[in-house]
Amino acid sequence: MSHSVVTIGSHSSLQILHGAKKEGFGTVAVLPKGREEFYSQFQFIDKVLGYKDEDEAVELINSIDNGILIPHGSLVEYIGSERVKSLRIPIFGNRNLFEHEADQRKKMALLKAAGIRIPEQFERPEDVDRLVIVKLPGAKGGKGYFVSNDRNYIKSKLQEYIEKKIIKSVDDVIIQEYVVGVPMYFQFFNSVMLNRVELTGIDIRYETNVDGLRRLPSRFTGSYEPTFVVVGNLPAVARESLLPKAYNYAKSFVKAVEKIVPPGMIGPFCLESVVTDEGEIVVFEFSGRIVAGTNLYIDGSPYMWFYWDEPMSVGRRIAREIKLAIGRNELDRVTT
Amino acid sequence: MSHSVVTIGSHSSLQILHGAKKEGFGTVAVLPKGREEFYSQFQFIDKVLGYKDEDEAVELINSIDNGILIPHGSLVEYIGSERVKSLRIPIFGNRNLFEHEADQRKKMALLKAAGIRIPEQFERPEDVDRLVIVKLPGAKGGKGYFVSNDRNYIKSKLQEYIEKKIIKSVDDVIIQEYVVGVPMYFQFFNSVMLNRVELTGIDIRYETNVDGLRRLPSRFTGSYEPTFVVVGNLPAVARESLLPKAYNYAKSFVKAVEKIVPPGMIGPFCLESVVTDEGEIVVFEFSGRIVAGTNLYIDGSPYMWFYWDEPMSVGRRIAREIKLAIGRNELDRVTT
Amino acid sequence: MSHSVVTIGSHSSLQILHGAKKEGFGTVAVLPKGREEFYSQFQFIDKVLGYKDEDEAVELINSIDNGILIPHGSLVEYIGSERVKSLRIPIFGNRNLFEHEADQRKKMALLKAAGIRIPEQFERPEDVDRLVIVKLPGAKGGKGYFVSNDRNYIKSKLQEYIEKKIIKSVDDVIIQEYVVGVPMYFQFFNSVMLNRVELTGIDIRYETNVDGLRRLPSRFTGSYEPTFVVVGNLPAVARESLLPKAYNYAKSFVKAVEKIVPPGMIGPFCLESVVTDEGEIVVFEFSGRIVAGTNLYIDGSPYMWFYWDEPMSVGRRIAREIKLAIGRNELDRVTT
Repeated sequence: MSHSVVTIGSHSSLQILHGAKKEGFGTVAVLPKGREEFYSQFQFIDKVLGYKDEDEAVELINSIDNGILIPHGSLVEYIGSERVKSLRIPIFGNRNLFEHEADQRKKMALLKAAGIRIPEQFERPEDVDRLVIVKLPGAKGGKGYFVSNDRNYIKSKLQEYIEKKIIKSVDDVIIQEYVVGVPMYFQFFNSVMLNRVELTGIDIRYETNVDGLRRLPSRFTGSYEPTFVVVGNLPAVARESLLPKAYNYAKSFVKAVEKIVPPGMIGPFCLESVVTDEGEIVVFEFSGRIVAGTNLYIDGSPYMWFYWDEPMSVGRRIAREIKLAIGRNELDRVTT
Repeated sequence: MSHSVVTIGSHSSLQILHGAKKEGFGTVAVLPKGREEFYSQFQFIDKVLGYKDEDEAVELINSIDNGILIPHGSLVEYIGSERVKSLRIPIFGNRNLFEHEADQRKKMALLKAAGIRIPEQFERPEDVDRLVIVKLPGAKGGKGYFVSNDRNYIKSKLQEYIEKKIIKSVDDVIIQEYVVGVPMYFQFFNSVMLNRVELTGIDIRYETNVDGLRRLPSRFTGSYEPTFVVVGNLPAVARESLLPKAYNYAKSFVKAVEKIVPPGMIGPFCLESVVTDEGEIVVFEFSGRIVAGTNLYIDGSPYMWFYWDEPMSVGRRIAREIKLAIGRNELDRVTT
Repeated sequence: MSHSVVTIGSHSSLQILHGAKKEGFGTVAVLPKGREEFYSQFQFIDKVLGYKDEDEAVELINSIDNGILIPHGSLVEYIGSERVKSLRIPIFGNRNLFEHEADQRKKMALLKAAGIRIPEQFERPEDVDRLVIVKLPGAKGGKGYFVSNDRNYIKSKLQEYIEKKIIKSVDDVIIQEYVVGVPMYFQFFNSVMLNRVELTGIDIRYETNVDGLRRLPSRFTGSYEPTFVVVGNLPAVARESLLPKAYNYAKSFVKAVEKIVPPGMIGPFCLESVVTDEGEIVVFEFSGRIVAGTNLYIDGSPYMWFYWDEPMSVGRRIAREIKLAIGRNELDRVTT
């Protein structure tokens, strides 16, 4: 096959390139200089290209013959949203979604438009009347997030962020009701080629230090501020009766994206949720591309085995979708 | 093959029907109207039949030609124990075990008869002298359970449950010592056909909100009551030196059931345990049928690979057992 | 093939023997009398030999024709370090590493020599100026470990251990800074035959009672002392950007062992780490042989699928390495 799958060497790139190779594509990892050795050890990666700065990254990506770029959660973070827009290479999925992802308010509006239950939002620290989590813009893996029920604390913390130039103004953050329940991340794949939505897996984020602090007796934890930096993922399955609910949300979301962000949802997405003890699924965020939680399921997730009688990671699923599109001469339906 | 495997579309039905199809059976999902779309997307399900009420469910189940019903944790919950008794279709496993499962006292008595270590039980709130967990009857996934070491609190909470008609009397609940340790659910399969007990896997229940609360700093958790509603499962393996112990318990349990609840244990069961820091396995509950924790292992659990050189879920294992029985013309030995 | 793989029936022996059988070896489990029934059920084990005491264990191991012993975390614990030294059978891996593993100070010195970031250490209780974890010598699975920030408490607790003859002197324990973050155990395999280091998987230890206590509201936990006894393992994957860092650590470690403990690292090892919210990997311990966390990945870990296009447990990987060595007539390069 004459096409090559390209991605930035980070996030879920091993999975993406491993899957692409299984589907017969050429594979290219573009990454910051210094990581070449690690990536070069994998035989399913044809080319490992190190870059010294973001501009060189763009150049390298654009230079791949017949390349198709697979975006993931680190793409914008690594080369910047403006440079992503300027890429001349086809990008798998809907690149118009990136700005919705980067903006917490647009993000939540899209979920709301889909009729999905989301947490209460508070415009200003002054409005807070319950426990909230304050989230920073961009996909920095939870860095800087904090939990509080104290208006003054929130105000002063945001003031501090402004002074440190972490944010420009209070409008940059989202102040979201902290829904008590358990986190559960429902991963889906909207197949334009097969005209269906697949439930590809479920994961839980593994966050430092909050998932470590809970191992300490509470008499020791007082002096530590909880942080929510995602450093890994844990596998899980959901009670089966939750699945039709989650699936309906996924279908509604696909419809909403089609309407609001044309050409709509293409490929993987994730509804990041909390499940309450009333059995409610509350979605507090979404990802409009492959999430790192799919890295758990290189040989197939419990759910993927129900759709496919072969080992099917989401990385491979993406490559399969592209292969189907190429076979029908419809690559433009799965790229933007 | 002319037999069809039937189950209620919930709990572990995807796994059961997926496994049945792999073993060559026809497959039927019977489920409450509204869930048809979700289940219809899976090609391994031949028929998806929606019912409007429990009586129609019974009718649909009874109408399946050459059908064999696989019971799971939601069967009694969905159609009621009386209707289950009235089913004319063969049920895989021992249907006499259902009432033991529904009655917390009979449940614990059966474990005790097997010589398995169980938590201390308290007949009345007045007797409580340590931390206990109070459990409601039936398999409602932990809903209404609570933890306390305060006799008065327990009394008033039970009084509240009686007033709200959640229970009839204090005798309906079980007041069980809360054993401190880590939960570990040992899943087994008693094969009548191969005359052996297989360790099929281990899981941990994922419970809301208790598994979420622990992510909150303790200064925020004071105002939330912990709840124990099971909304998913997490995979685990045990220290290998624990396995012979757990396995001996499983064998003793099979013997006890054979004696007390004829014709004995057939197929999957689970010993829900806490492992203490002395390396003791304390079993606080059992399930006499497939548990939802097996949903993790559609492509085989770490332990199933030791018994079978092919991907073997418990759902598939059930179908394999039935196939073996049919081949020997002994279907009556694995159904009741 | 005329060689047999032998191991003590515990820890990761099922995986080791299962993998050995897949690679064509004879397989022998040597174990304390009483466990024979459990191990005998597995068809991939050719011989199950029960011993009544440690001397008989040594005799049995030495008696295996063409046997190769695979050491694991329970070997020294079960038969004692002196007896291990006296074994005449080839041992896979570097047996000179055992004493480094048994001595917490040598252990940390080796990591330090590799340039790996380790927690601060305190020579005496009097020096402690922050939260620390106090660890006992030997691989007892965390038994007796405790957390404290109080010099007097540490002193009196150690005094108690000395009186109870759990330790001989304060010098036997290691007093290590308790690094706040999340635990992550990076498993590697140094292949002498393929001249490369493989990342074989990641796990998290499941510890009683500390992982259970956190499920209790803090108002109930006050009366329980947290303990850290490992009774199982949980699977995880890491944020991909952490992998090159962990991999560099692994390579440095291999180099350090080569220099300090000839003939160097052979086969599996593990860097037991905490990941902080600054994205730092702090290694607080290492294992110089197969760890029990690999028991999760009998059918291959997410990472092993990247190296091997077949199900590859670490047990099987060991057998593959031996097979490669035998094929090249270089068995002495992978055994000591």
